[in-house]
Amino acid sequence: MLSQESFIKALRDLVGQERLLTATEDRWCYAFDACADQPKYLPLAVVLPRTTAEVAEIMKLASRARVPVYPRGAGTNLSGGAIPSENGLVMSLVEMNKILEIDIENLTATVQPGVIIQDLNDALLSHGLIYPPDPGSVTTATFGGSVAESSGGLRGLKYGVTKDYVMGLEVVLADGSVFKCGGKTVKNVSGYDLPKLFCGSEGTLGIITSITVRLIPSPEARRSMLAVFDTLDGAARTITGIIGNKVIPATMEIMDNVTIRAVEDYCHAGLPVNAAAVLLLEVDGIPQVVEKEAAIVEQVCRENGGQLEVARDDVEREKLWTARRSALPACARLRPTTVLEDATVPRSKIPEMIIALNEIAQKYKVQIATYGHAGDGNLHPTITCDERDKEEMERVHQAVDEIFHKAIELGGTLSGEHGIGVAKQKYMELEFGRSGMEVMRRIKQALDPLGLLNPGKIVGEIGGKE
Amino acid sequence: MLSQESFIKALRDLVGQERLLTATEDRWCYAFDACADQPKYLPLAVVLPRTTAEVAEIMKLASRARVPVYPRGAGTNLSGGAIPSENGLVMSLVEMNKILEIDIENLTATVQPGVIIQDLNDALLSHGLIYPPDPGSVTTATFGGSVAESSGGLRGLKYGVTKDYVMGLEVVLADGSVFKCGGKTVKNVSGYDLPKLFCGSEGTLGIITSITVRLIPSPEARRSMLAVFDTLDGAARTITGIIGNKVIPATMEIMDNVTIRAVEDYCHAGLPVNAAAVLLLEVDGIPQVVEKEAAIVEQVCRENGGQLEVARDDVEREKLWTARRSALPACARLRPTTVLEDATVPRSKIPEMIIALNEIAQKYKVQIATYGHAGDGNLHPTITCDERDKEEMERVHQAVDEIFHKAIELGGTLSGEHGIGVAKQKYMELEFGRSGMEVMRRIKQALDPLGLLNPGKIVGEIGGKE
Repeated sequence: MLSQESFIKALRDLVGQERLLTATEDRWCYAFDACADQPKYLPLAVVLPRTTAEVAEIMKLASRARVPVYPRGAGTNLSGGAIPSENGLVMSLVEMNKILEIDIENLTATVQPGVIIQDLNDALLSHGLIYPPDPGSVTTATFGGSVAESSGGLRGLKYGVTKDYVMGLEVVLADGSVFKCGGKTVKNVSGYDLPKLFCGSEGTLGIITSITVRLIPSPEARRSMLAVFDTLDGAARTITGIIGNKVIPATMEIMDNVTIRAVEDYCHAGLPVNAAAVLLLEVDGIPQVVEKEAAIVEQVCRENGGQLEVARDDVEREKLWTARRSALPACARLRPTTVLEDATVPRSKIPEMIIALNEIAQKYKVQIATYGHAGDGNLHPTITCDERDKEEMERVHQAVDEIFHKAIELGGTLSGEHGIGVAKQKYMELEFGRSGMEVMRRIKQALDPLGLLNPGKIVGEIGGKE
Repeated sequence: MLSQESFIKALRDLVGQERLLTATEDRWCYAFDACADQPKYLPLAVVLPRTTAEVAEIMKLASRARVPVYPRGAGTNLSGGAIPSENGLVMSLVEMNKILEIDIENLTATVQPGVIIQDLNDALLSHGLIYPPDPGSVTTATFGGSVAESSGGLRGLKYGVTKDYVMGLEVVLADGSVFKCGGKTVKNVSGYDLPKLFCGSEGTLGIITSITVRLIPSPEARRSMLAVFDTLDGAARTITGIIGNKVIPATMEIMDNVTIRAVEDYCHAGLPVNAAAVLLLEVDGIPQVVEKEAAIVEQVCRENGGQLEVARDDVEREKLWTARRSALPACARLRPTTVLEDATVPRSKIPEMIIALNEIAQKYKVQIATYGHAGDGNLHPTITCDERDKEEMERVHQAVDEIFHKAIELGGTLSGEHGIGVAKQKYMELEFGRSGMEVMRRIKQALDPLGLLNPGKIVGEIGGKE
């Protein structure tokens, strides 16, 4: 077994002084991610590998030293999935940031894990292609992180989420061995679906060092719309009504009054501050499809008491979507702490879930701003609070408890797109039962018997030291 | 440990005389599936459970008796995935054949594993919805089998394959424990993606007892076309040309001359028997999309020397697709044995693969009929032969070897949609390397430590007796 001191020395020999951070102030920068209300631990060191071979070598050293490794992208994680334990090694993949290939004929791109999602979309622009998954953090988040979390985003309703686009992966396992799975074929049923298993595994099964994703032609036309409602119920009925009319918008987002006010205050987008709720919608496709679907959207909105405004140009469109993307930072300004959840329900249960969220807010006297991907059933109830106030946080935690219980009761899930991390672990058995948890624990233990890969996430601690 | 005799008695007590087949003639009916050129073993017995509780109880008994269990649907498997070993228990799920729910609001259906795929589509007709995956055996194959194999089909190009539609599963594990994963939410990143892991696991990790799938609105309009080519190359260039023009047809199938002649002889569909190749295409969507895409298809065909005929009505359309679906039975009439492969390459490598298949046919003096899902890169080279002729079969096996090596060399995969089963196991390391195989073996061992679930498939035998 390698001592901690020898481990650090071996890492320094491997990557050099500059890519091994051991100063206290550097290490603190990696003690948290974007998830509030979580414990913070100072990691032992931070390493920034540049090649798959370096990642493999680091894992071999970590195995010998029994030091847990916490892989990390840009740290935009919203479930505490990137938080290290004390004396763990943080592995930041941001230096592996090359777009390795854009394959026009096969409609695929292959990227290193440190590539920022928007950077790929910028590179695709001239080819008339897009990579659809677009988490709110698209301009910051890396591919590695978004694949490890199977991120969602605004276009999930029509286009699906990250796991729907991951075709092939190169992965470094806990023991430092490297393997590839999947590839560029649109059909592949060779063996177990390992790309899908590693996608969304939150760094607990392996470290992703290369990613091949599917691309699609960018839609020829699109139309963004803002629908304003006097009642939350009208907005909720419009959501199910549009899909009931067989229109699947690219995006169908909801913001409630609390969110509208926060956003308007933050970025002055011209939102109606007295509305009970707004829906932000976009339909896309060839111009004829856009015409037809927009007409149906307008009709359903009108039938449910909504006022529809259409973005007349790209400037107005951009303003609308900037408003939506500002929901989290805007709410975050209201109070010192922002507890953002992503409990998700079947689409038909959205009205019931919205009512439940209002009741929970009143019951526990907390402020919940609700916005999110309404068409997916993926709401983001956001509780603004102050983590220094213990009594308030007690109420916040009770409210969160009840939100998750309600989501599961309605046939939903703990996480639509933010992952489990440390934040939602205690609710896992609620969703999966003992047998389901046992399945996940066995998979974790089979692939990482020493418990070195991001321990404490998803399935809790198994073996190893933390 | 339970003796074999006590095991059979306990099974009979559980399900009754009628649903436990022990007569030799009954057992022989379950000794094979649709995959030719495989060994046949007589199973110990065949059990037909009707409930999840019965499946769980059977697995508990099998664990106590250490008897391997071979789950099975309609037996249309094309990779030997449903073939039992001697003294194994075949578990046929065909009696669990209820459509449990069609949920119009959430666009989902929940079915038992014995439901035939076409039966769900028939039930969806009046709702204006479809379940897109459509393997050639759609009127015979069951949901359980198609999910266990992650079947593909003709619409895979535009609509994806089975794994793209599986949202939730109920699974019985080797030890008889039952768990549920996934559900009706279109977004779900809670824990490891277990529905995707079990989908395509070929019955080696658990027995699927309930399946929730995603539905989509049926397309408003569609147009089927037949493009006739004097050269294989012209057909191949048309495939990449259409997608290069950003048209993704619902279906884009190829048949070479050998296949055309076999099909014409079999069902008299009016196919041009002197053509080097035909493409069968269908575009769908709203009428304006169909118009536009059909025009592009026509232009690309013309540019590459193809003659396009459009099906004028449903009768002509049906005739066209019946011709395509007849390719396998038609080829099967040519000689006593039909070795059907589904090696798959990235779409851009289709022309190269077609050339390679011709060379391989000449080199080993075997007849290869090639047809399949050209747009997906998923060809079905079909070797007609006679398994009683050892010398010929030797050449057939060498040709198959070379087909798989070529597919992998071109960045492809062993299986686009038929699975690994027993037929392709020896090539697995070629695709996954030792590390990749080790990952799969560890997962198998973690979930089925006694090696009782369909042993010998995908990863080969691990533990247990066979």
